[in-house]
Amino acid sequence: MTQVTEAIAYAHQERGRFVSELKDLLAIPSISTLSAHKPDMQRAAEWLAANMRGMGLEHVEILPTAGHPVVVADWLHAAGRPTMLIYGHYDVQPVDPLNEWHTEPFTPTERGDNLYARGASDMKGQVMAFLKAIEALLQTGGLPLNVEIMIEGEEEIGSPNLEPFMRQQAAKLKCDFSLNADSGIISPTLPSIAYGLRGLAYFELWVHGPDHDLHSGVFGGSVHNPAQALAELIAGMHDGNGRVTLPGFYDKVRTLGVEERGELARSPITDAAWQAMTGAPQLYGEAGYTTVERTGARPTLEINGLLSGFTGEGSKTVLPAKAMAKISMRLIPDQDDKEVEAQLRAYLAAKAPPTIRWELKSLTSGPAVIVSRDTPAMQAAIKALEATFGVKPVMRLEGGSVPVVSMVQKGLGVDSILMGFGLPDDNLHAPNEKLHLPNYYKGIDAYIRYFDEVARLS
Amino acid sequence: MTQVTEAIAYAHQERGRFVSELKDLLAIPSISTLSAHKPDMQRAAEWLAANMRGMGLEHVEILPTAGHPVVVADWLHAAGRPTMLIYGHYDVQPVDPLNEWHTEPFTPTERGDNLYARGASDMKGQVMAFLKAIEALLQTGGLPLNVEIMIEGEEEIGSPNLEPFMRQQAAKLKCDFSLNADSGIISPTLPSIAYGLRGLAYFELWVHGPDHDLHSGVFGGSVHNPAQALAELIAGMHDGNGRVTLPGFYDKVRTLGVEERGELARSPITDAAWQAMTGAPQLYGEAGYTTVERTGARPTLEINGLLSGFTGEGSKTVLPAKAMAKISMRLIPDQDDKEVEAQLRAYLAAKAPPTIRWELKSLTSGPAVIVSRDTPAMQAAIKALEATFGVKPVMRLEGGSVPVVSMVQKGLGVDSILMGFGLPDDNLHAPNEKLHLPNYYKGIDAYIRYFDEVARLS
Repeated sequence: MTQVTEAIAYAHQERGRFVSELKDLLAIPSISTLSAHKPDMQRAAEWLAANMRGMGLEHVEILPTAGHPVVVADWLHAAGRPTMLIYGHYDVQPVDPLNEWHTEPFTPTERGDNLYARGASDMKGQVMAFLKAIEALLQTGGLPLNVEIMIEGEEEIGSPNLEPFMRQQAAKLKCDFSLNADSGIISPTLPSIAYGLRGLAYFELWVHGPDHDLHSGVFGGSVHNPAQALAELIAGMHDGNGRVTLPGFYDKVRTLGVEERGELARSPITDAAWQAMTGAPQLYGEAGYTTVERTGARPTLEINGLLSGFTGEGSKTVLPAKAMAKISMRLIPDQDDKEVEAQLRAYLAAKAPPTIRWELKSLTSGPAVIVSRDTPAMQAAIKALEATFGVKPVMRLEGGSVPVVSMVQKGLGVDSILMGFGLPDDNLHAPNEKLHLPNYYKGIDAYIRYFDEVARLS
Repeated sequence: MTQVTEAIAYAHQERGRFVSELKDLLAIPSISTLSAHKPDMQRAAEWLAANMRGMGLEHVEILPTAGHPVVVADWLHAAGRPTMLIYGHYDVQPVDPLNEWHTEPFTPTERGDNLYARGASDMKGQVMAFLKAIEALLQTGGLPLNVEIMIEGEEEIGSPNLEPFMRQQAAKLKCDFSLNADSGIISPTLPSIAYGLRGLAYFELWVHGPDHDLHSGVFGGSVHNPAQALAELIAGMHDGNGRVTLPGFYDKVRTLGVEERGELARSPITDAAWQAMTGAPQLYGEAGYTTVERTGARPTLEINGLLSGFTGEGSKTVLPAKAMAKISMRLIPDQDDKEVEAQLRAYLAAKAPPTIRWELKSLTSGPAVIVSRDTPAMQAAIKALEATFGVKPVMRLEGGSVPVVSMVQKGLGVDSILMGFGLPDDNLHAPNEKLHLPNYYKGIDAYIRYFDEVARLS
């Protein structure tokens, strides 16, 4: 019996405890964007540190940043073998609208094959999967390579303190390559590896009209309603072909080659399945591209929130003084987040009428990333997934943004393999987030195999 | 000394108490649209009933409706004289955004000549002004005519139960004409009488896209964002000339005649003064009309509220499942509120793309009203205002809606004189609502004179 077989047998034996530990972590409401949850952030970090110490990881520490702390650990006894940095985050998204959850977001609840809780898939489930893979190897003879672990608490707010942290801890974090577990696969029966991630530029746009709320009967018709003006500005941001109209927005977007379009077309997700997953009446998007291309290989502009005037029960005849939209763009190489901000400002300067005043705040941003598809680390990942799922993984471009991948590339000079086991219907950032438990179990097996493969191939 | 002189002297003597009683009424948060304030509605009705009993009004009763109760009273000892129905309402608008109030909305606070509180101008101040005028006359020999008083608690939610109430109480409410005190004048030195009121049609429009909130990175670009779709629908509701685009919207709008445009042009309010009052960067409106015409003689469509997705602190990368707008139209004779709803539905049916689903709820509505300018009651009002302010009142069209005026016209068969003492900068329906106290005092004097004049002219 090889150590891999032994470690996988251990992991299968301990599944019950692995789920119960995950539930303990999920019960901590570690919402990084809400200051009221600061104590919960600390609790989550301490829970992780204790769990990691318990399984035999070393130098476990909770290191402060200007924001939420980073939990680090290592195991460096594989002399002559490469060192891998494993990245995760313990923070989660807010839970509103709370009334749309079927069970409490921080009371992890199993229904069928799924475990429902905020953070179950994004990404406490993925963090526990790689930790439990490490535990299985440590308990059956040790790891086949050296590992550094870095679990931050600010991914959901754009990792504002991670770059300075990595600079400061550069000596400790020195590694040969990195694993980023904040990712997913296409379906429970079809593994995939994301080799590209869209960048993000997130803004808050305010439109100001009157300097105070007015009576819509007395003043209606005589001033430009800020909610109307905001709607007019938003409506102009896409043309009739679903293309973003910001000046220069597509100038630096990498053109999709024939080979890459072919590879992406291998995705088995049909438009009908995608539509069913969203529940939308029809699909929509940029003319001339498939859904897979629209969500992975093309930049987008989405409205994430709208707020103006009276939104309570009943009718209040107010002409609001101001209106707000949260607006974010997903970016494709080689778009630059600062240039995109300048494009948005240029659009607003050109289109906003003199009857209102606008104000734009940049909230978070990060560039897009493409990871090379032919490194030994990538080949090891492909092997590990194929061995676990019995089918060769599909290579794909992920629509979401993981700013830390480019931070690691810039700060530590290494590429990340994006390997995680979330599913497209896991309701990330939405009510009723869940983790598919069979994926949790297979994820642990796949990480065990990956650690073994990558140690041998590197 | 005539009784009028005597009553005015009494009113001047009692000003301190009249303000202090008004403050007691203003301290009751009688917000009709919020069900949590139901007990406050009852308290406000009881406070008024007690005050009216104390001043010598008779048959004071709090009569139930399907919603909030109506306070009624009378004094019918002027044998051979006409009977006037006086209308008021004791409910007020909600107070949000609360953080923009300089003092608590239900802690009435004097600053300079103004008394700040929700409802100070709309319309507890106007209600107390006519009640205190009645008190002054009752305390100095009696009223020169018969009065019925009807003070409802549902004006701010569209008076949904007033028509059945008036039908049921028709015998009791029989009158020769009516006074509606829910109105205002142009400035503290320039009285005016509104002879027309815009109608109202208020809606909630929902746009539904995906059946749950989605991750904007994973799904962005592949479905029609409901906040974007809502913005596109709203943006299309006005054309480049500030005209409303709903099909047939202007078909029944009465054309302004040369004489009427001349009368309206007598308004001393300049565009610069109007703009200063709003604090807007510039004025805006339907091309081809003056500000006075835009706010009184032309129909409008305003957005009263917007809500979608994440609106809290920071950035949440959600693609919202739905988006909501509160939309209201102000109507001009002979627009019909039901026809306008059909026009909005026709617009949505034609413009809404198949990528989303829409849903329209009608919240409140009422037609526009024009009151004849040459009745004895109107002439008496003109005389009373001229005697009190020393200048002939300007005749004007009011932008706001008082659905009860048309209900009284339909239900009791009488015209209303619109005579109240609010000011355009009283912040009705907005933070920091206030009453100009000199207007409160002059209002009491003017009502005393009006009751005297109208008894003699009719």
